[in-house]
Amino acid sequence: MRPSGRAPDEMRAITIETGFTKHAEGSCLISFGDTRVLCTASVEERIPPWLRGKGEGWVTGEYSMLPRSTHTRSSREAARGKQSGRTQEIQRLIGRSLRAVVDLKKLGERQITLDCDVIQADGGTRTASISGAWIALRLAVNGLMQSGDIKEDPITGQVAAISCGIYNGTPVLDLDYPEDSSAEADANFVLIEGGQIAEVQATAEGATYDEEGLLRLLRLARIGCDGIFAKQLEATK
Amino acid sequence: MRPSGRAPDEMRAITIETGFTKHAEGSCLISFGDTRVLCTASVEERIPPWLRGKGEGWVTGEYSMLPRSTHTRSSREAARGKQSGRTQEIQRLIGRSLRAVVDLKKLGERQITLDCDVIQADGGTRTASISGAWIALRLAVNGLMQSGDIKEDPITGQVAAISCGIYNGTPVLDLDYPEDSSAEADANFVLIEGGQIAEVQATAEGATYDEEGLLRLLRLARIGCDGIFAKQLEATK
Amino acid sequence: MRPSGRAPDEMRAITIETGFTKHAEGSCLISFGDTRVLCTASVEERIPPWLRGKGEGWVTGEYSMLPRSTHTRSSREAARGKQSGRTQEIQRLIGRSLRAVVDLKKLGERQITLDCDVIQADGGTRTASISGAWIALRLAVNGLMQSGDIKEDPITGQVAAISCGIYNGTPVLDLDYPEDSSAEADANFVLIEGGQIAEVQATAEGATYDEEGLLRLLRLARIGCDGIFAKQLEATK
Amino acid sequence: MRPSGRAPDEMRAITIETGFTKHAEGSCLISFGDTRVLCTASVEERIPPWLRGKGEGWVTGEYSMLPRSTHTRSSREAARGKQSGRTQEIQRLIGRSLRAVVDLKKLGERQITLDCDVIQADGGTRTASISGAWIALRLAVNGLMQSGDIKEDPITGQVAAISCGIYNGTPVLDLDYPEDSSAEADANFVLIEGGQIAEVQATAEGATYDEEGLLRLLRLARIGCDGIFAKQLEATK
Amino acid sequence: MRPSGRAPDEMRAITIETGFTKHAEGSCLISFGDTRVLCTASVEERIPPWLRGKGEGWVTGEYSMLPRSTHTRSSREAARGKQSGRTQEIQRLIGRSLRAVVDLKKLGERQITLDCDVIQADGGTRTASISGAWIALRLAVNGLMQSGDIKEDPITGQVAAISCGIYNGTPVLDLDYPEDSSAEADANFVLIEGGQIAEVQATAEGATYDEEGLLRLLRLARIGCDGIFAKQLEATK
Amino acid sequence: MRPSGRAPDEMRAITIETGFTKHAEGSCLISFGDTRVLCTASVEERIPPWLRGKGEGWVTGEYSMLPRSTHTRSSREAARGKQSGRTQEIQRLIGRSLRAVVDLKKLGERQITLDCDVIQADGGTRTASISGAWIALRLAVNGLMQSGDIKEDPITGQVAAISCGIYNGTPVLDLDYPEDSSAEADANFVLIEGGQIAEVQATAEGATYDEEGLLRLLRLARIGCDGIFAKQLEATK
Repeated sequence: MRPSGRAPDEMRAITIETGFTKHAEGSCLISFGDTRVLCTASVEERIPPWLRGKGEGWVTGEYSMLPRSTHTRSSREAARGKQSGRTQEIQRLIGRSLRAVVDLKKLGERQITLDCDVIQADGGTRTASISGAWIALRLAVNGLMQSGDIKEDPITGQVAAISCGIYNGTPVLDLDYPEDSSAEADANFVLIEGGQIAEVQATAEGATYDEEGLLRLLRLARIGCDGIFAKQLEATK
Repeated sequence: MRPSGRAPDEMRAITIETGFTKHAEGSCLISFGDTRVLCTASVEERIPPWLRGKGEGWVTGEYSMLPRSTHTRSSREAARGKQSGRTQEIQRLIGRSLRAVVDLKKLGERQITLDCDVIQADGGTRTASISGAWIALRLAVNGLMQSGDIKEDPITGQVAAISCGIYNGTPVLDLDYPEDSSAEADANFVLIEGGQIAEVQATAEGATYDEEGLLRLLRLARIGCDGIFAKQLEATK
Repeated sequence: MRPSGRAPDEMRAITIETGFTKHAEGSCLISFGDTRVLCTASVEERIPPWLRGKGEGWVTGEYSMLPRSTHTRSSREAARGKQSGRTQEIQRLIGRSLRAVVDLKKLGERQITLDCDVIQADGGTRTASISGAWIALRLAVNGLMQSGDIKEDPITGQVAAISCGIYNGTPVLDLDYPEDSSAEADANFVLIEGGQIAEVQATAEGATYDEEGLLRLLRLARIGCDGIFAKQLEATK
Repeated sequence: MRPSGRAPDEMRAITIETGFTKHAEGSCLISFGDTRVLCTASVEERIPPWLRGKGEGWVTGEYSMLPRSTHTRSSREAARGKQSGRTQEIQRLIGRSLRAVVDLKKLGERQITLDCDVIQADGGTRTASISGAWIALRLAVNGLMQSGDIKEDPITGQVAAISCGIYNGTPVLDLDYPEDSSAEADANFVLIEGGQIAEVQATAEGATYDEEGLLRLLRLARIGCDGIFAKQLEATK
Repeated sequence: MRPSGRAPDEMRAITIETGFTKHAEGSCLISFGDTRVLCTASVEERIPPWLRGKGEGWVTGEYSMLPRSTHTRSSREAARGKQSGRTQEIQRLIGRSLRAVVDLKKLGERQITLDCDVIQADGGTRTASISGAWIALRLAVNGLMQSGDIKEDPITGQVAAISCGIYNGTPVLDLDYPEDSSAEADANFVLIEGGQIAEVQATAEGATYDEEGLLRLLRLARIGCDGIFAKQLEATK
Repeated sequence: MRPSGRAPDEMRAITIETGFTKHAEGSCLISFGDTRVLCTASVEERIPPWLRGKGEGWVTGEYSMLPRSTHTRSSREAARGKQSGRTQEIQRLIGRSLRAVVDLKKLGERQITLDCDVIQADGGTRTASISGAWIALRLAVNGLMQSGDIKEDPITGQVAAISCGIYNGTPVLDLDYPEDSSAEADANFVLIEGGQIAEVQATAEGATYDEEGLLRLLRLARIGCDGIFAKQLEATK
């Protein structure tokens, strides 16, 4: 039995509030149960130095948890003077995941930064971030197309992410914090609408799993992402 | 005429949503018009080293702006590796302002950190932070009193803050961003319910003002803070 | 009674030694009693990136306390790897205060940095810094005018600063360290020769004051600054 | 055709030189073709603060590339003042991978740090690091058992890692640098002797793969790791 | 001919003003011509962690140049966030030099920090720092002996330092800035009263010298240090 | 008697393995007994900003010890976020020493960085670094001459370094770690083939030495460097 009483293949309720902040070119507050992340897309007419003159754009991600998004307060990374390894790992994952569905040539020489700030954490903050970042990106690109700054849609598909894990011996979908902190194995899947895999990060600290276990988690992830894809479409229509 | 069409002594609409996050001992999302700040109070049963053994507690503040809370994206302080002078100045102001209404002996040997994270900025973020931080603090202390951890209320009064300035030659209350960026003079007042002044920060970059001008701003600030005091009471009842 | 035996409206002795260092374009060692600050003005023919092409110059301030300027030794900020919030707050105040009396257009595309290094501290280091920095600035600008680099005087007036506070219930002028560390309230005023106010920073940690109290401190500050203005003129003649 | 002329399921030559440095409790220089990594295991009789009093030990990893291990010189992270996100990600992966085969209770209250310093890079530095770190760990633990400091072997099995990818449409084993820099997809597998999976990191920047593709890479990884397991045994006999 | 017109073995005028700051346990402003350094000795009743329980004290040095002590302004190390290699090298030299004449057992479990802050630089700041630091140390230790905190004098002798160099082919004593910046070779000698050598740092960037050249510089240094030893005695009588 | 049984003027065995890494333009692994340092020379077609437009090149050095090159593990400077004073001091020494034998005009507008990474430490790491760096530099410059990028040899001679010290009252050559940690005095000499001195760093922490002692160490250093010069020639033929 899962602590929340959910079925093994049952997601938490997803809610999406688009346009949560007025300055960003695209934004949403996405919730997976009690996990809430503010995702904003910022368009800037400049690109990183190493891309200059290539006629391409760039999509990157940043991630942070508010100090009291967690059960006990964490100190601010800005006060400590550096971002943790975990933060940097997640930022890189967000950027790669979104770039998997963007044609950087069609984006043109501009950068879109996806800021994912965790307002409240209850497990799955990185996967909610990716899923919400796609919405913010979609809204920002819609704006660029309406203004005529971009002629052809650079977004090639939808991307979403979900965590799965083995909890008390059972593969379960969309771990919340109580499950996450005692799961035997934990995997994050970034999937693309239509069946392709963008990224798998399967970690088994303490435990391990076999090929069959990995596949069962992947199949749960497909169920989860199909639900997210539908929510993303609805939110950006 | 003010850009917003407000009268010189007219505040923006204030809304307060308490309990905005579930982990913090006290929290609210406070809005002054389009300026929105998430304020959380975190209680920790430890005190700074220099206070040990004095039988006193501590109240401190931290402040940050989300990267896209502003018109154009600002880089993250955590990524730059240090907090700006402005951030540190505001953090110190938040802490001092709240300590002005707390009896640290009655608080006991614990620390309350007031995190003020700006979700959306449209002028007056530091004054909204102080005004909202009092609410988060009040809620957290209520909890400590209900649980019996604190016997006697350490909060000695209400504190609120507001900005005033001289815009096109006229003293006006509660500057929004368009006013703030072109005001001749700008002052932040931290006032205590009942008429006392906790802090004045009056800055006249480029311009200056005389004694009479300072007093007129102070009187506008009283009007503004009276409105905030009423909202604070209502929100924490 | 004040610890020093001074009357409530009595300043400490001010001494000013101009030309204290030979490399700076302007310099002085200013003393307010035992508080001694070395102020230097450095002229550089370059401006901050955000000012380029605007035909304007810039005036900025930096501040530091020597490690043993204080009763007990403080560690060096350079060794700790960052400047404290207090240092940054004071640096920003010095810069704003001096810019209040400089026409940046007339200064031309150059930057003047006012370095204020506290040799010995006994209360009022930031106000002595501002008062001395004006002298260093005046001397440096005199040099630029004599060499013909500047045609029209960019300095529009004198600026000086003084601290006042409420000590044992009495408003007093020019707090020394014993007063500063036990005053109920403490305010720094930056005034402009002729009666205008450039900046007020009135802080009441623990205590508070009312409108009447603020005005009494402001009037003391006027007395103090009038004395500093006279000393400044004498030193730069 | 692979640039090196290898068959799709053909590893590069692996050589292992144990005892490469005399101070470390365990060490080896491991080569996968031209990729060479110095792995050392350092035993310290202290544990991280958060583990104190739990009767457990800790195993952690650190990783660095010498500045000229790469085709063009990279600046030193020590000179830049911080470790990159990539470095931190790899360090965390090394630590998790080794902990997957260590019973921390049996290790006792001590820490073993596995330093992996890349002498020469030609693709696959993180997987060579993990594979070599196991050897250094095995040698260090052997020493602790011979000296009687540890009674029961805390190492529960062998762990090794290998990269696979899709190169010109074909799944290939053990990517070298020319393959790595143009592969459509790239996955690192950390496997445990006997068939279990400790970690999968499958990334498809630009491209994607389906379930079948992932499985084919996993099967190649099994072939590769079986070869490494044999080399590890031989080196530590 | 030397730019200053001095004879090859002629020092610049040395002046020493003891008690330059009131808080430090020992202090002086030492001048070698236009080079002026404020040296303070701070006594603290604590020792570095690695010395605890050994019944010994510690003597250490710190060094900094005020931003405008030099011909053109240098940025503050505190603002840049780290001390330069040159600063750290000089700090280490000051500490070693002073420890060469202190019996750390007799000092007892306390630390004396010698802060050397360069007010004005004209060549030879590190040697003036060492020579002045001895005076500050002597005065501080005198105080500890008068108060009875130390029974037996821990200072075993005098230490002084001077720079020498080869300028236009001639060995010269006590280089000033114009000489220092064009000398073929440059050496700093730290000597102990009575003839012993504590430290030699002879550097020949661009040029080189032979054994005879080194000895001639050493002999000049002896002449210089004998003069400094006399000044030190006079100042601390 | 020396712990190693060597005669006072006896060096440890020197071995040099050139071409140790394939990417660097020049490289060697140099051993002085158990001290082993990897030296690489990296040629870059860019120069530091302050050299631009002068028609000169630059030669610089960097130094690091692998965390477990020492008896007990040292933490990584990259993890601590800054290089120690000792590291910076050695880096500066390596750069100066090599520049003593390079005509920067003939080098042309390019930079050669000499990275010295200590694989195993047993005393004398900085002197082995300098001696090995010359070999890496020589090999890199040979390449530049063969490719025709440089017409005239910019290397004006050989440079080598060795440590000497007074151990149990006897001057000895090439200190190993057991000697280094208990020597009364310790000096590093950087000598140029043909008899000139490039640098002397003689330090006597705790002890001191006289002129005669310094000369005896210098003569030992000549013996040592003559041996190194021969090895350098042999390795680069």
